[in-house]
Amino acid sequence: MRTAVLIEPHQFELQDRPRPSPGPDEVLVAVGEVGICGSDVHYYEHGRIGDIVVEDPLVLGHESAGTVIDTGENVATLEPGDRVALEPGVPCRRCSHCTGGDYHLCADVRFMATPPHDGSFAEYVSWPEDFAYKLPTTVSTTEGALCEPLSVGIHACRRGNVGTGDTVLVTGAGPIGLMILEAARATGATDIILTDVVEEKLAFARERGADLAVNVAEADLEAAVDQYTDGVGVDVVVEASGAASSIRSTLDAVKRGGTVVLVGLANEATVPFDVLDIIDNELDVLGSFRYKNTYPAAIDLLADGVVDVEGIVEFESTLADIDDAFQRAMDPSVVKGMITIDR
Amino acid sequence: MRTAVLIEPHQFELQDRPRPSPGPDEVLVAVGEVGICGSDVHYYEHGRIGDIVVEDPLVLGHESAGTVIDTGENVATLEPGDRVALEPGVPCRRCSHCTGGDYHLCADVRFMATPPHDGSFAEYVSWPEDFAYKLPTTVSTTEGALCEPLSVGIHACRRGNVGTGDTVLVTGAGPIGLMILEAARATGATDIILTDVVEEKLAFARERGADLAVNVAEADLEAAVDQYTDGVGVDVVVEASGAASSIRSTLDAVKRGGTVVLVGLANEATVPFDVLDIIDNELDVLGSFRYKNTYPAAIDLLADGVVDVEGIVEFESTLADIDDAFQRAMDPSVVKGMITIDR
Amino acid sequence: MRTAVLIEPHQFELQDRPRPSPGPDEVLVAVGEVGICGSDVHYYEHGRIGDIVVEDPLVLGHESAGTVIDTGENVATLEPGDRVALEPGVPCRRCSHCTGGDYHLCADVRFMATPPHDGSFAEYVSWPEDFAYKLPTTVSTTEGALCEPLSVGIHACRRGNVGTGDTVLVTGAGPIGLMILEAARATGATDIILTDVVEEKLAFARERGADLAVNVAEADLEAAVDQYTDGVGVDVVVEASGAASSIRSTLDAVKRGGTVVLVGLANEATVPFDVLDIIDNELDVLGSFRYKNTYPAAIDLLADGVVDVEGIVEFESTLADIDDAFQRAMDPSVVKGMITIDR
Amino acid sequence: MRTAVLIEPHQFELQDRPRPSPGPDEVLVAVGEVGICGSDVHYYEHGRIGDIVVEDPLVLGHESAGTVIDTGENVATLEPGDRVALEPGVPCRRCSHCTGGDYHLCADVRFMATPPHDGSFAEYVSWPEDFAYKLPTTVSTTEGALCEPLSVGIHACRRGNVGTGDTVLVTGAGPIGLMILEAARATGATDIILTDVVEEKLAFARERGADLAVNVAEADLEAAVDQYTDGVGVDVVVEASGAASSIRSTLDAVKRGGTVVLVGLANEATVPFDVLDIIDNELDVLGSFRYKNTYPAAIDLLADGVVDVEGIVEFESTLADIDDAFQRAMDPSVVKGMITIDR
Repeated sequence: MRTAVLIEPHQFELQDRPRPSPGPDEVLVAVGEVGICGSDVHYYEHGRIGDIVVEDPLVLGHESAGTVIDTGENVATLEPGDRVALEPGVPCRRCSHCTGGDYHLCADVRFMATPPHDGSFAEYVSWPEDFAYKLPTTVSTTEGALCEPLSVGIHACRRGNVGTGDTVLVTGAGPIGLMILEAARATGATDIILTDVVEEKLAFARERGADLAVNVAEADLEAAVDQYTDGVGVDVVVEASGAASSIRSTLDAVKRGGTVVLVGLANEATVPFDVLDIIDNELDVLGSFRYKNTYPAAIDLLADGVVDVEGIVEFESTLADIDDAFQRAMDPSVVKGMITIDR
Repeated sequence: MRTAVLIEPHQFELQDRPRPSPGPDEVLVAVGEVGICGSDVHYYEHGRIGDIVVEDPLVLGHESAGTVIDTGENVATLEPGDRVALEPGVPCRRCSHCTGGDYHLCADVRFMATPPHDGSFAEYVSWPEDFAYKLPTTVSTTEGALCEPLSVGIHACRRGNVGTGDTVLVTGAGPIGLMILEAARATGATDIILTDVVEEKLAFARERGADLAVNVAEADLEAAVDQYTDGVGVDVVVEASGAASSIRSTLDAVKRGGTVVLVGLANEATVPFDVLDIIDNELDVLGSFRYKNTYPAAIDLLADGVVDVEGIVEFESTLADIDDAFQRAMDPSVVKGMITIDR
Repeated sequence: MRTAVLIEPHQFELQDRPRPSPGPDEVLVAVGEVGICGSDVHYYEHGRIGDIVVEDPLVLGHESAGTVIDTGENVATLEPGDRVALEPGVPCRRCSHCTGGDYHLCADVRFMATPPHDGSFAEYVSWPEDFAYKLPTTVSTTEGALCEPLSVGIHACRRGNVGTGDTVLVTGAGPIGLMILEAARATGATDIILTDVVEEKLAFARERGADLAVNVAEADLEAAVDQYTDGVGVDVVVEASGAASSIRSTLDAVKRGGTVVLVGLANEATVPFDVLDIIDNELDVLGSFRYKNTYPAAIDLLADGVVDVEGIVEFESTLADIDDAFQRAMDPSVVKGMITIDR
Repeated sequence: MRTAVLIEPHQFELQDRPRPSPGPDEVLVAVGEVGICGSDVHYYEHGRIGDIVVEDPLVLGHESAGTVIDTGENVATLEPGDRVALEPGVPCRRCSHCTGGDYHLCADVRFMATPPHDGSFAEYVSWPEDFAYKLPTTVSTTEGALCEPLSVGIHACRRGNVGTGDTVLVTGAGPIGLMILEAARATGATDIILTDVVEEKLAFARERGADLAVNVAEADLEAAVDQYTDGVGVDVVVEASGAASSIRSTLDAVKRGGTVVLVGLANEATVPFDVLDIIDNELDVLGSFRYKNTYPAAIDLLADGVVDVEGIVEFESTLADIDDAFQRAMDPSVVKGMITIDR
């Protein structure tokens, strides 16, 4: 089968590799659609993300969906022909995080496209049955692939306990920020403010229903939030930009007793926090790492038409053109590219 | 001012009473719209609800909104001309429930139209500023009045921790059941099943977006739920009918580890529960009493158009015709009547 | 190896069975001590518990600890000579309960001494490494075995969110009630009331630190609670008797806004509940099923000397005398018997 | 009545002021014992804490207990002769924080000894009935006064959700750190590590039951925690030192998925945080501000003898000698001084 292997920064190689066989608890999936994630692009550009270095050739891709073509002997809930979204991280199932309800924090998770585990820019992937979620006819394969970034948004909103009537500030209007917008609205937030420094992204956020979109390169965020909330501050901030200035600003925008959820991976090693603010206002500052138990909810929300994920796709390409696709995805104004696995 | 006073069962008297003056922390409100609640009708029919007996003439009505016409000396956030929804229960602010975050459980709450406290079928009401919530221009006075039943729905969903992707069963498709439907959908439930024994109500529930509506006079609820959920059961049941058979059925419909919220006041003193079910399936069976901290969320949801409350209004009447209106409201197929306080 | 097999009600047979070999993720444990649980006695007397019938010969026993004598190839954290407590229920690790943090609700759990799974009245048991918890030198093997009933108490208190300063009512002063007493005190409850109908058990509860012990065969519980709590009611009730009258009384003893945890398996199919009480007082009525993630906490509490479990042991016996031991355990005034697995 | 008024830094003046009269909902209390808090000492030394400046003469003192000598007309639960602990912050009871269950975050709280509100270094204080908590005979007046710092510890442990079997790191072994130690043990923590840079304080912490006490001026905290926890990290860190280096170290000591509670007011404006740590380990970093709903629990724990607060008192003095007492309290090795209000 064909796979797109990152050989070195800025260079994919299409390699033929043996088609995997499903283990007894696995399904063999003919991959259909795979989203290009910011982390894929980061590996492509730099060959590493922080301390995680791509030392051996690596198949990238982890936002994927496809069609079951074979099943292992223990598989009972899926059969050939079923379309499925693949949750890309499979935990050890045995450690205290796994039994404690936090399988996404498992230290031994096998996560697609994170060295040394290959990803899904490939014709076929064999994957555990219980991390392959059947898609109803009303959810497209592209939507199935985009359950992954939507899951990041759902998990962040769950971490922040976003609920009916909340005012939420989302800093950063990239694909993750937009997914947080969708998830926050789906869970009852009635006022959602987005920020960015790129005017096109802000305009796009407004089109997609942001109640306020603030260009933080030009306007003062705290003043804008104060005006919007009559000086109270927002109930929840979800930080999705990773920019140090944005991370710092979260404490000024949130109300007393409010919650800050950190999602965007910071570009700088450390960010100075005003600890007195955290204490005097009794804030909750919560990290949000990937997601857990989100795929069924994501699929239900998509099936109901409550959230829109396909609207963020700007272009589709193929395995054969993957280098071009990644060049295009490096443009920061592009929201999301998809790779169709043609065969 | 004119008031509609329940003199004895089945008989209102329009009485002239002195217009109240606002206390220092109160606003004087010219009442505009008041919903007829099932509890009003119950007092009208029976002169009592359980142990609570109407011994002295009582002004009924507690789902109300109107316009501020005067303010006490300490009032800072409202001014004449502001339209407001009135939260009908004002707690003591001093007991352990009040300081503990459960003001709605305050034993000394002053609740409109609950003896000995008069309600809002009156031209004017004086009410504490912080229990009068300003309505934006996008929310009608009728919607403001209906924040009250909507609050019951929001609170029940919060009690049940309804969230994104949940499957929710609401037993009883009367006004409260329909408000729970609205609130559940607003907070992310993607599959909502309603039950009733009146076919018109079920048809109405379907029109308003119920994914499944089951006539429990004819069909087996457990079988219907099993089919809909592939044998898993629903995540949350919100019981809104008060019927003993319906209350009992909640334990059969909910999934293992799921939650049952009891809202509908039971007609019978006690209901036999299968305790082994509660233990073996580790269920949460939670009472839900009125609401707390819901009005701002209710108004935001209405302003956003996320929920529909006016759609349940079947007729509007006036103070002068209140006896006729209550006769009409006694018809169990009528969902909601409103009294316009004309002056 | 020798095992004690329940052949039919009231009759054990000592059978020689092949010693198990540890699987790759398992440890082979030379069993040291096994507690006699009420469920063992129930199977012994009746050959069934509710719908669960012992159709084939069954090794009973599930409160057990012993010494590792061999390890599978993947085992990394235990080695021969380690003493371990065995958590008796091993889940499937794959279903939504397992990944959702509720492994104890897994429908495919393999639970010792629950048909068709054999228990630990045997010289050797092979058990997954991660459900075998190493005991420090300060915790005896008997204490290790009694981590099981202590876990029931810890889990019930976690379900009820028992915390500092709480007043807790525990109905039923048998071994589970006494373990709930220990767990409640360990987590900060400062006032603990126990009930029973056997005076010796109440006296024993007083010795072990109950602040009040009420004989509900003679005294009125609600009056006693009212007096003790100045009419407020207790913060949390944990029902551990399974008696219908006791289950009903929980709603009268708990404060408004309080919590009732149901642990004791009811003897009757259904118990009439006052639903209006649950709603008007906005109670939480919570089932508590077995336990999850409790063994490390149980061992830590035992190592610290914070809780006392050995004090409930009334007699020790051996495999050879197991029939006599069970006859003795059938006496309701006996709190706990232990079987030493001599070899 | 005599009062100790801070005239300027380093100078109290004993002033005669009129004895207050209790309002209708208040009790008049003859103050008995008042603890010297670090914030009192800070005002004494610097005339300010951060942005809060003592511009007018101020009566300090807010850790106080005494005896009711008169009651307002509405007071029903207290009578002359009752000894009471005084919770020093009385909120507005009307804002969204007050009705939302977070009265301690009320912006209009009247807090003793915080400008412009006078404190309790005075012979008499008039105080709302519901913020004056009756002491049982088993709790001394000194213990009553020390309910205040104990409340800080209880609240911090509640914020961190400390529970049975937890390993807790408390950074800073001053009076607040020691109260956190007491509260953490009372709620089930079985392993408690304290840090400080003063060897005497560490020795004192060991005497009071710390399982490990680390001098972070000499030893590497992360290494010590790794060794103690087998590389896992602690469940909860409660930061009570306010030192920037200590605040930063919390992220290295806590386990993946763990919680950091910030209590100690930082001496520096901002502290650099490793945001990637917070996200990748999905930490909760929670501010803890004063306390709410803690006094009843504190009194119950003291009445039960579960916690020890008097053991931290190093000296007692009187109003007449208050300047000397504060000079002595400025010595960082002194844990706690008390002022007896003699009359």
